[in-house]
Order: sequence, then structure tokens, then C-alpha cells
Amino acid sequence: MLNRVLDYARAHRDEYLKDLLEYLAIPSVSAQPDRARDVKMAALWLSGHLHEAGLRAEVMPTAGHPVVYAEWSGPDHHRPTVLIYGHYDVQPAEPFELWHSEPFRPVVRDGYLYARGASDNKGQHLAHVKAVVSYLRAEGTLPVNVKFLIEGEEEIGSPNLSAFIAAHRDLLACDCVMISDGALFNLTQPVLTYGLRGLVGFEVQVRCLDRDVHSGHYGGNVQNPAFALAQILASLKDAQGRVTVPGFYDDVRVLSAEERAALARIPYSDADVMRETGASMAFGEPEFTVNERKGVRPTLEVNGMWSGYTGPGSKTIIPATAHAKITCRLVPNQDPAKVIRLVQDAMRAAAPAGAEVTFSDARGTPASLVSLDAPQIQAAARAAAATYGNPPFYELEGGSIPVVHDFQSLLGKPIALLGFGLPDDNIHSPDERFAVVCYEKGIEASIRFIAEL
Amino acid sequence: MLNRVLDYARAHRDEYLKDLLEYLAIPSVSAQPDRARDVKMAALWLSGHLHEAGLRAEVMPTAGHPVVYAEWSGPDHHRPTVLIYGHYDVQPAEPFELWHSEPFRPVVRDGYLYARGASDNKGQHLAHVKAVVSYLRAEGTLPVNVKFLIEGEEEIGSPNLSAFIAAHRDLLACDCVMISDGALFNLTQPVLTYGLRGLVGFEVQVRCLDRDVHSGHYGGNVQNPAFALAQILASLKDAQGRVTVPGFYDDVRVLSAEERAALARIPYSDADVMRETGASMAFGEPEFTVNERKGVRPTLEVNGMWSGYTGPGSKTIIPATAHAKITCRLVPNQDPAKVIRLVQDAMRAAAPAGAEVTFSDARGTPASLVSLDAPQIQAAARAAAATYGNPPFYELEGGSIPVVHDFQSLLGKPIALLGFGLPDDNIHSPDERFAVVCYEKGIEASIRFIAEL
Repeated sequence: MLNRVLDYARAHRDEYLKDLLEYLAIPSVSAQPDRARDVKMAALWLSGHLHEAGLRAEVMPTAGHPVVYAEWSGPDHHRPTVLIYGHYDVQPAEPFELWHSEPFRPVVRDGYLYARGASDNKGQHLAHVKAVVSYLRAEGTLPVNVKFLIEGEEEIGSPNLSAFIAAHRDLLACDCVMISDGALFNLTQPVLTYGLRGLVGFEVQVRCLDRDVHSGHYGGNVQNPAFALAQILASLKDAQGRVTVPGFYDDVRVLSAEERAALARIPYSDADVMRETGASMAFGEPEFTVNERKGVRPTLEVNGMWSGYTGPGSKTIIPATAHAKITCRLVPNQDPAKVIRLVQDAMRAAAPAGAEVTFSDARGTPASLVSLDAPQIQAAARAAAATYGNPPFYELEGGSIPVVHDFQSLLGKPIALLGFGLPDDNIHSPDERFAVVCYEKGIEASIRFIAEL
Repeated sequence: MLNRVLDYARAHRDEYLKDLLEYLAIPSVSAQPDRARDVKMAALWLSGHLHEAGLRAEVMPTAGHPVVYAEWSGPDHHRPTVLIYGHYDVQPAEPFELWHSEPFRPVVRDGYLYARGASDNKGQHLAHVKAVVSYLRAEGTLPVNVKFLIEGEEEIGSPNLSAFIAAHRDLLACDCVMISDGALFNLTQPVLTYGLRGLVGFEVQVRCLDRDVHSGHYGGNVQNPAFALAQILASLKDAQGRVTVPGFYDDVRVLSAEERAALARIPYSDADVMRETGASMAFGEPEFTVNERKGVRPTLEVNGMWSGYTGPGSKTIIPATAHAKITCRLVPNQDPAKVIRLVQDAMRAAAPAGAEVTFSDARGTPASLVSLDAPQIQAAARAAAATYGNPPFYELEGGSIPVVHDFQSLLGKPIALLGFGLPDDNIHSPDERFAVVCYEKGIEASIRFIAEL
């Protein structure tokens, strides 16, 4: 059965790629209110696609963007059930001018499919969909029951997914969860992730004036909110990149010598960071290596910042306000609400005279660690080894997938985190891409995983 | 003759207002390349208007936006010549959403004309144009020769005007210069300005990465340019608002006790700054009063700042770059090139590890002091007293008019700086306005000034 399904998938690679191109053309940017119709379109496209493939599929409402749910059950009630999670929403594509092709006009160039969402996450979850399609078309059946939960709010922190999972525990009942929303180490080296950082975020506004004013009339006589924000931000880290917010690291677990040794074995170094990002140096807490800083240390970053006139030429004003978008990546034991409070308290305390500081849009999810012993995780490991040619590395991931924490607390089942992308897919960046071979290998890995369960 | 001209102007106030509304509807924003056609339109509108009034008028090219030049000469070659300067370009109107009516759809509301450029400077120089029109229509002649030099680049620092003046010294030959590009103290209290601050500016870019990257994958391992810029900016001022750039104040003249006493007599206080700007306190060098800080102390301000994602919602990236627009107001004795060098050196020195700092768009004009003894200045003082009911205050102005320095060095004639606006005209801000009565009084003051020369 397995070989026939694999052969079917290989024979239909062009059709499967065409479908992904179509899906990627829908600009489902969850963060942007004026894209709400496109987000809905992507949900409808996917549920229609699942329905055509022979699954029971529906678009289910939430308080925000809808969830696409689909399932296929065999006649034998004792077969295992796998729940496959993904997200059909994508990051904003701005700045558009840095893309070499349009983010929502997918093109294949030199073996890569370029489009916003190609790797994160449409290409990766559609690989699972195409694995199921291959079984159903080649064999008319699957050796397991399959459920798909594909959400539309991952890129904005999944604000409504906990409530959705809690309200639909019976519907989502399963034996294990499979999530492909990450990367291989390279094309022959898969990775099973056993830890994800959490994420908290908020926006800060510094207001000094009730409107922008003339910098000649008022310069030197009023507080400038851009300076005030700069002073506040500058107070949050020291010159080496350590976060100086009081209490920020208090709940962070001290690494054991074994953990440090294990992380030291990952062949990823300062030079890799420099090559991948264009940085002139790796930069961060000097007591830790890049692998430690990425996997087990929390971060505090500015994702965006703005104040006053940002157009061409000059405008000689003192701005009324200054703004920044702040996020922290959390490690296990850190409480999201506490971290938000600590950082906001530190920012308030650092506010200079004449600056009024307010916060909005606070949100957070804790970090997750998943167990690697379950037989389903070992099935994923065998499928990965057979597909890519090497047994997987076991790694901590610097990114965050909020739903992992919810699955752990609400479903309590093993979670396999097996990424299909590559580290240089430029996710969240201009020129996001997904290697065509990664899509095809992802389909194969999913087919093998289903067979191994 | 004077009374007949004044009567003519009063009888035609509605027509004169209608013309100003038409002029203000042209969005001549010199800083924005996509407004270049509108800037040209404003020049054509004005030269057409001057030509119709009976002046020899032309639109003269520069390396940037053109200059509108016009003149009227009487048969008697011994009469004095006044050169009237103004600028037909305006500040950007952003942020549009803070305006209560559209910036380029001028409306009169409660006695104020609301539009970008109403006070700064279309309303003020058109008042002079209408004074000349009133003489020519009522009397068919003027008691003096009049030249108009109305430029289109004042709001971007007049980069091409020095060269224009130097190349056309004969054309611009005159006995005095009149500039109305400022404000009365209030409707019954005119001000003659004897000092203007200079202005230098540049843009700074901080680059840490070759593109925006995922804050989960790289957070904690690379320098964040928004933090780097914040650290650089925060290093430039102390907590009290003093500029800490080494050498910044070195060339600033120490105030004499007499000067401090004179500035202390101006009835302008912290409370006025707070009321006019919405600031919760006046803020600046604690050793100086608001009048001293506005008139005789240099400043360093951020006019705009941006980095990363600034749209709705969140985008979990580390930005590749961060940017700020910086300007300094200069006082007499400060050399623009030196101040730019000192500030940029301090910013380079403050750049943290992993941050590459570059500068662009540097430009500057020194401060100016003008003599008050010339008979032409006294003519302006008499005209102001007769128009507004009180003899003028003599003041130092916080703003900058780059051309004043050029007129001093290239023409060497007395310069009268008599503003027709009000302090709360919201120039450079949303809801810029010009009181209709200020326009009418400005026309009257100009008619009287011409008669007094």
C-alpha cells in the first residue's frame, strides 16, 4: 500500500504544486483588517479542497478568523486518530519593495516557490493534505483516522484557538498531534522539535504633546516623545544585549552541564547566524552560545517603532507621540502575564519627565516542552529517517507555536513537531520561499508517518 | 492716497479671501516628490496672479523647485525699492486623520481659514501681493518700486536659493527686504524679529541585518537596530534635556544680564508652552527660561523615527534597519557644518556592537541677527503700530528662515521680519489656520509699510 501511495504522489507532483500556487495567491494576512475577506477566502479554498478530496470539511467560526476543520474516519473504530494542525494565515508581506517577485503572485524560480506563506505555513500543511489525498485516490482508504485543524490566527498569536479547542474537545479527540511548521536542519537532516519558546507582546505609546508642533517654536522647551521612547528602550538592555528588566530572568531554569553539552553538539554557530541574516556578528548574552540563546534563553525585541514624520524629505516638527511594538520569547517556567508586567513596569519606571506611557494589545502564550518517548513520536522519527536519509536531530526551537501549549493542556496527547521547510526560507521576511523538493519530501514524510502509526 | 488704498482693500476683502482659498487648494508640498507637479502649479498660479495685477512676473528655474519673481517699477528712478520674500511651498500635511477638515480643501470656520500653508506662508505673502494690487487698482501706481521673490523650497531648507540670489544680484537689488513668515504676539501686539535660529538636519540609518528576520529564530542572537538606534539617541541628551554631544554648546554666546532681563520681560511662560502644545510640563535645559531656550539656545530634536513593522497587529520580526530624521536649531556663532560633524561623531561613537550607522541628506543654515536701526525697519515698526494699535515687541524667534542669512551676506540690506500670523496657527501641525482678520490686517500693514518707506 505504502509504495503505491508514494508512487501516486510522485506521479501527481505537478498537479499538487499547481494547487499550492493557487492557495498561496490568496493574501490571507490575519494581522491586517483590510485583508479579512482574503483570510476568509483562504479558509473557503482549503475547506473546499478537503471536501473535494473526500473529507468531511467545514469552516467553523471563532470570535476572530475561522478555523478549517476536516476529518476522514475509516470503518474500523479501533484504528488510531491523528490530528494535523497548521495555519492558513500568513505574516504581513511589507516591505513589498524588498521582494524580488510579488508576495501574492507565487512563482517558481531555481527550484524554489516564492510567496508569502509558502513555507509558513501553507506549503507545509498542504503537504499533509496531499498525503491524505494520495491515500484516498490511490487506495480509496487510509490506515488511520485523520483530522485537520487549520487555523487562521497563528500569526497574531492564536487569540481564539484555546477557546475553540476547549469547546470542541470531543470533535478534536485523537491519539496524537502532528505539526509541521518549522524547518529541517538541511535537505538530508530532519529535526524533531521538543521545545518551543513562548511569546508575549504588546504595543507601547509615549505621548508628550496633543499634536505635532513646530520644532523651531517649541524645540528645547518640550519633551520629545521619540527621545523619551529611545531612553525607555535603551534602559531595557545592557551593552552586551542582556535584558536589564528587574526579575526578567528570575524564573528561567539554569542549564545543566548535560543540556549545555547536548546543545553544543548542534552544528550551528555564530557564522551560521551571520550568513543567514547578514549580521556583522552574532550578538547576545555573552555567557551563552547561539544555540543556548536560541533555545533556552528568553528575549526582548522591538518588532517595529515609529514616531513623527517618516515620509520623504524633512518636516521640522516635534512629534506628539512615539510608538513601539515589543515581543518577548519565553522559555519554560516563565509566566506570560508576569513577564508583561515586569517589562511594562520597567518601561514606566524609565519614562522621563513629560512623557506619558500607555500600553495596549498585550497578549501571551507560555513556552512548551514535549515528550519524545511516545510511540507516535517514534513513528514520526522513522518516517523522517526514511524520507530524508538520516535519523532526526532533537532540538529546541526559538520560535513559538501558541497552540502547542493548548494541545498539551486541553488534549494531553503526544505532539510531533516535524518541520518540512529549510532554515533559509525567509519566513516573516521578504522573499519567503519553499523549495519544491521540500514540498514533495513533506508529502512523502506525511505518507510514511501515516503508514508508521 | 493711503486712505483710498486702505478703503479699496477693505471693499475687496471677499475677493481677496477667495483668491487665497484658491491658492491654498494647491498641495504644494516641496518635500514630497509626488507633489512636484502641484508645487509647479502653485508657482504658475502665483505668477499668473501677479501678472494680472500688472507686475512683470515670471517663474524662474532653479536646480529644484522654481522661484516666482515679479516686479513693478515706477517712472521715477530715485524711489526706494523693497524686495518682498515669501514661500509658496508648504509642509507635508500628514497625519491627515488628525485634521478636522481636509488640508487642501480650505474652509473658513469661526473666523479662521483652515488649510496647510494658510499661515505658513501663502496667507502672509499673499497679503503683501494684495497690498500691491490695492495700490495699483486704486491709484494706478505705487510710491515705491516693489520686487517679489517667492520661493518653493523653504520647507526643505532652501537648498537652491543661495545660488539663485548669488546669480541674480542685479535683478534683486533693493533698499530693504520685507519678510512676513511668523506671528504677532497677539492681535493687538505686533512683533519685529531681530534674530532667527539656524537649522541643520540629516537622516540616520542604523543597519544590523540584510533583511527583516524571524524574531523566534534569531531573537537573542543578533543586534536589533531599533534598540541600537534607541541607545544612540538616548546618549545624545541627559535626563534634564541638555544635549550631551561633546562640544555642542562650545560656540554658543553666553547671555549678558541685560539680555536675560530683556528676555524675562516677554510675557511668555511655561504655562503658555503647556497650553499651546498640550505638554504636561515645559521641559528643557534647567538653567534657562522658556524664552531663553526658544531664542538663544540651540536644540537637537528627532522629527521622525521608524523601524520594522508599523502596520496594524503584530509581525514578529527583528527589523533589518532603523531610521531617524534629526534637526538642530542653531544660534549665532554656531557653524552648521561643525554641528553636523559633532552630532554625527557622537552618534557613531554611541553605536553599539553589530550596528552600522550611516548618514544622509545633511544640510544646514546658520542663525541670523538683523539690525534694527535702519530707517526701513522703523518704517515697518510705524506701520505695525498703526495697524495693530501698539508699537512692536522686538524678539528672537525660535524658527529658521534660511534665506535671511543669504540676504544678509549677498544683498547686505536691512531686513524687516514682521509676522502676520498668530502663535496658535498650528503651523507644521494638523489644522493649520490663519485668522481672516490676520489676513486683512496683514494687507493693511503692508499698505502702510509701503506708504512709510
